Amino acid sequence: MNQESGMILGVDIGGTKVAVGLVDRSGNIVTQLRRPMAASGTAEEGLQAVVGAIDAISATAEGGFQSIGICAPGPLDPKTGVVLNPPNVPCWRNFPLAARIAEKYRQPVKVDNDANAAALAETRWGAARGYHYVFYATLGTGIGAGIVFDGRIYHGNTGAAAEGGHVSIDYRGPVCGCGKRGCIEILAAGPAIGLRARTKIAAEPARASAILQLAKGNAATVASEHVGQAFAAGDALAREILLETVELLTAWLGNIVDLLDPDIVVMGGGVSAMIKPFFGEIKNRLPDWCVNPRAAEIPLVMARYGADAGIAGGAALCAEDPA
Amino acid sequence: MNQESGMILGVDIGGTKVAVGLVDRSGNIVTQLRRPMAASGTAEEGLQAVVGAIDAISATAEGGFQSIGICAPGPLDPKTGVVLNPPNVPCWRNFPLAARIAEKYRQPVKVDNDANAAALAETRWGAARGYHYVFYATLGTGIGAGIVFDGRIYHGNTGAAAEGGHVSIDYRGPVCGCGKRGCIEILAAGPAIGLRARTKIAAEPARASAILQLAKGNAATVASEHVGQAFAAGDALAREILLETVELLTAWLGNIVDLLDPDIVVMGGGVSAMIKPFFGEIKNRLPDWCVNPRAAEIPLVMARYGADAGIAGGAALCAEDPA
Repeated sequence: MNQESGMILGVDIGGTKVAVGLVDRSGNIVTQLRRPMAASGTAEEGLQAVVGAIDAISATAEGGFQSIGICAPGPLDPKTGVVLNPPNVPCWRNFPLAARIAEKYRQPVKVDNDANAAALAETRWGAARGYHYVFYATLGTGIGAGIVFDGRIYHGNTGAAAEGGHVSIDYRGPVCGCGKRGCIEILAAGPAIGLRARTKIAAEPARASAILQLAKGNAATVASEHVGQAFAAGDALAREILLETVELLTAWLGNIVDLLDPDIVVMGGGVSAMIKPFFGEIKNRLPDWCVNPRAAEIPLVMARYGADAGIAGGAALCAEDPA
Repeated sequence: MNQESGMILGVDIGGTKVAVGLVDRSGNIVTQLRRPMAASGTAEEGLQAVVGAIDAISATAEGGFQSIGICAPGPLDPKTGVVLNPPNVPCWRNFPLAARIAEKYRQPVKVDNDANAAALAETRWGAARGYHYVFYATLGTGIGAGIVFDGRIYHGNTGAAAEGGHVSIDYRGPVCGCGKRGCIEILAAGPAIGLRARTKIAAEPARASAILQLAKGNAATVASEHVGQAFAAGDALAREILLETVELLTAWLGNIVDLLDPDIVVMGGGVSAMIKPFFGEIKNRLPDWCVNPRAAEIPLVMARYGADAGIAGGAALCAEDPA
């Protein structure tokens, strides 16, 4: 057995790209590459895009790999590895992804959605290592979540559990993309931060803010990234916007804590990186938003994995249970 | 071994009473009695009230009982059986209830809070028998909840999980007794139904409603019971109030379903009995309040146990795991 014999292949399939990586048994991504995804052609073309990426990285993997774990776009069935009807990968409808990949490579294949898989990667190898009641959320354009109990992804009855981004804290609030009102995703993900900034700038045009400068004076193009950059540069309006976002996230986390009583909360994604300076604020405010008497003691930490969470997550699906 | 040798003693301790019952291995409460609780005296007086009730029922139990399960007021530690600082039983502060009862009766003793225990009783013997992802809620003066996964109570990390009544769906809403805003308990439990009725009656005094008649014309004393009775008699205002309550409960259940993906939802308590005619409405509306594609298929059923849920729940803590 050479030193690479324990490698796992992690595959991250999105609407525009397939990312693949070789991951060692400590969760290190040893090598990775990206290829375009063929999301809108035939089902076979979609499969071939994935196979092409796997073959390309296989050529670089001297010792090979022993299993394949795939983060695929939901909804999907993690038990069967069938991808159901993902809105951003329309080429697949009830597509038996795990079975097709397993057939081709003659290796065990596991499939799960990105947030579940990333939650598992954090538990196996990352920020939640050693914890037993893990709540993970990735905050970016949307908000995804994963729950890992005793080292295993909590799927619920049908595989649809842990849709944390669609927990509503405002039943009369704005309509989310999912159709519900007041989901934390519509209130506090990247687009909500951008909208909040545009609204404030429109309401107070005279108020000088670095946000507008960063958007080159074009208020219509202001997005969450500009808010993050402006905050990093000390801008008061950006701080105000992020504090409002943080308060909403705290109310939401309070609900999560009151239902799940986690022993750690891990946050990943671009928005989490942006609000990381407020993690202390969230922890301080959390007891006001839940009845759990020990809420203030729950660690709130940044994820280990960033843009490569999908690769690590895919691989984690195939790593042995540490329990 | 005589026929009663498999009996379990279920004990339900509240702020005003101790209820005890002998429960057979099918969850039937064979005999029960109630005694007053001494909640505000010394810790020993509180214990003696419990012991007195147990001794009284023991005298009637020919074959005895083999274990003792206790529903006690929370917060408490279900692992150690220590009652921490229950607001409605001030005589106990960090009181080792399980240890003291076990010492006296030389039998295994388990302790948990009422909603967790009732959820387990429903899973072992009641409406959720055979289900693996059970969400139970008891709707009355407050809203309690319990989660049972694969036949075991889900406690979370510190024993504080499943505080479903304090999941907020309105972060800017009314302040709950717990301090949070917009908890389902402050929006939809019995007192909220009474308040909703009083508010509507005050706003439209000319509107004839059976609710006010049932309260003998005294609007200030209108309570949820009057709403329930009026609804049963066909009153339109009562129906309107219950429909508004049902919509809030549906939004809340949507959050629960999106996080937990249960295979059954069991509802107990007086308010559940009142809104039972709307269970179909809740099921129909649920898909609008969650992203779970199979939400409409989740059974929503009344609990088997009513006022005696505490006795059955206590006993269920000592029943063998069916798994």
